[in-house]
Amino acid sequence: MTTIQDIADKLGISKGTVSKALNNAPDISETLQKQVLETAVELGYTKLRRYKNSKKRLCILVQKDNIEYEEPHHFAYDIVMGFRQMAEPAGYAVDVVPVDVHAQRRSSYDVFMLQNDYAGSFLLGFSLGEPWMQDFQTSRTPAVLYDNQVIGNPSTAYVGIDNNEGMDLAVAHLKQLGHQKIGYLSSALGSHIMQIRHRAFFQAMHHHGLKADSSSAGCSYYLSECMEKHLPRLLDMGMTAIICCQDTFANAALMQCRQLGYQVPRDVSIIGFDDIPLCPYTSPPLTTVRQDRTELGKSGYYALNSLLNGVSIGTMLLHAELIVRKSTRDIRD
Amino acid sequence: MTTIQDIADKLGISKGTVSKALNNAPDISETLQKQVLETAVELGYTKLRRYKNSKKRLCILVQKDNIEYEEPHHFAYDIVMGFRQMAEPAGYAVDVVPVDVHAQRRSSYDVFMLQNDYAGSFLLGFSLGEPWMQDFQTSRTPAVLYDNQVIGNPSTAYVGIDNNEGMDLAVAHLKQLGHQKIGYLSSALGSHIMQIRHRAFFQAMHHHGLKADSSSAGCSYYLSECMEKHLPRLLDMGMTAIICCQDTFANAALMQCRQLGYQVPRDVSIIGFDDIPLCPYTSPPLTTVRQDRTELGKSGYYALNSLLNGVSIGTMLLHAELIVRKSTRDIRD
Repeated sequence: MTTIQDIADKLGISKGTVSKALNNAPDISETLQKQVLETAVELGYTKLRRYKNSKKRLCILVQKDNIEYEEPHHFAYDIVMGFRQMAEPAGYAVDVVPVDVHAQRRSSYDVFMLQNDYAGSFLLGFSLGEPWMQDFQTSRTPAVLYDNQVIGNPSTAYVGIDNNEGMDLAVAHLKQLGHQKIGYLSSALGSHIMQIRHRAFFQAMHHHGLKADSSSAGCSYYLSECMEKHLPRLLDMGMTAIICCQDTFANAALMQCRQLGYQVPRDVSIIGFDDIPLCPYTSPPLTTVRQDRTELGKSGYYALNSLLNGVSIGTMLLHAELIVRKSTRDIRD
Repeated sequence: MTTIQDIADKLGISKGTVSKALNNAPDISETLQKQVLETAVELGYTKLRRYKNSKKRLCILVQKDNIEYEEPHHFAYDIVMGFRQMAEPAGYAVDVVPVDVHAQRRSSYDVFMLQNDYAGSFLLGFSLGEPWMQDFQTSRTPAVLYDNQVIGNPSTAYVGIDNNEGMDLAVAHLKQLGHQKIGYLSSALGSHIMQIRHRAFFQAMHHHGLKADSSSAGCSYYLSECMEKHLPRLLDMGMTAIICCQDTFANAALMQCRQLGYQVPRDVSIIGFDDIPLCPYTSPPLTTVRQDRTELGKSGYYALNSLLNGVSIGTMLLHAELIVRKSTRDIRD
């Protein structure tokens, strides 16, 4: 096991200086501290021994630009709650830490975790292009990623719902209601989850013997572009139902359809994804694929606790559930 | 909640007779008992209340024709042990019950579980065509399937290793050793896991920028046919490495290569899948993708316990690990 002495030897400095750097003492330069932390990570130093006599600390790292969590109606609020409900009674201290791209550029993931004394993390809202996503290829501090998967690093795990199942339930529901021509609206494919749902749409259509080709889907970075360009195109193609990558898109589609003179569900059925708190209150109330967010938070804790105990969980998916409300109808009625 | 009275009313018989049937009393005809059990399942009757004062019973259902578990060198031995190590200290009684196709035809899964007083099951070795695999589409008694996935039934969960990751690690390892022409040998695609690994082979080749088409893989129901027909064909095609769907195939390939005058790893590298206890002792010792069987058993318990507590876990995959031994080599040396 790497000791403080090893770090001191490697850098040719005193043990006391290393200790200061590891403990965020004020009287050490930022440059030297960075060097010590990076060397500590490189040598595989951990503070685990220290935890014997104190609470282990975990963090929920939230990419605030992509996901909201602070208010009860925010998407990630229940995920955070579910995690805390499991972790705190088990004796962990849990911090919720907003992290943006700049913070990720400042220090690598392992260095950040060492510096802040966190034994492991649960990450929400990270998209594929962010700096730390590259770190997770080789990082050694346990990290559980909500809706992101890293292949081949035993220190990471992926937690989410089974999106293939969710998409299959959505398509099966529409087929049962007599729909054959089904379109898909999505935001840009810059996140793992958007890629998975996009692929799942074509798989589900194929599985249920329905035709879909690249023209059946419309993807845009901007919600407005998706609604003004792709939605009218899909309607012109004669689609009787449209599945949306997430509820915010579905809600925008409900409004845009109305503007275009289409009644939902009379003229077109709409299905969302996630079951955000808004869904029962859209007009009409939205049929959607549910993510049980409290259970996702609990699963995140379970996976992280497993990694901390040397059990190399890679993937943990909850069953998806279709919540049928009023935005879909049988077109043969 | 369905009561014994409900079952009695539905069948027009007395409560006493229903009770006898549910408790396997000797003085009731087999036909009547079957009718009572099927009606009980149909009405959603459970014996859960009864468990308040006694140990809950779980079972590990083993398809003995496909998987062995009784001796320490058998593949499923450690899976069974891992499950028991978690379940028994948690207060469950665990039976290991061999189940063949005939037993599955005799009664449906839910009826079997009710009749034998099991709250939930962990299933090992079931292939796709077996009677109960159909039952799992709609069954209501919690069932965790090792290496099998049921889409859309919240009472079932899938536990295994991440085979996509495992195959990716195998192909990455070979590519790093300079291999470009890689073949795949598999048993017939009659099980979920063989289908997944077959697809994973092509995905991994594609991911690493290596060419593979349908001629790159050879699948046969009979091991001997695979070795006599497909292995020579792949070698004739100039493959410098062959990945096998499981270690028994890889071990057979090691022997067959020798007979055909090829030295492993000098002339061809071989990789297996599973890391069965035999692997360190093959000639040469086999490089393979490891499944941690004790952890798989523990995961099986965790998933089952979650289902029993109303948490709808769908999929739980452990990280795969590549164990490098002596059957692969750098072809540029």
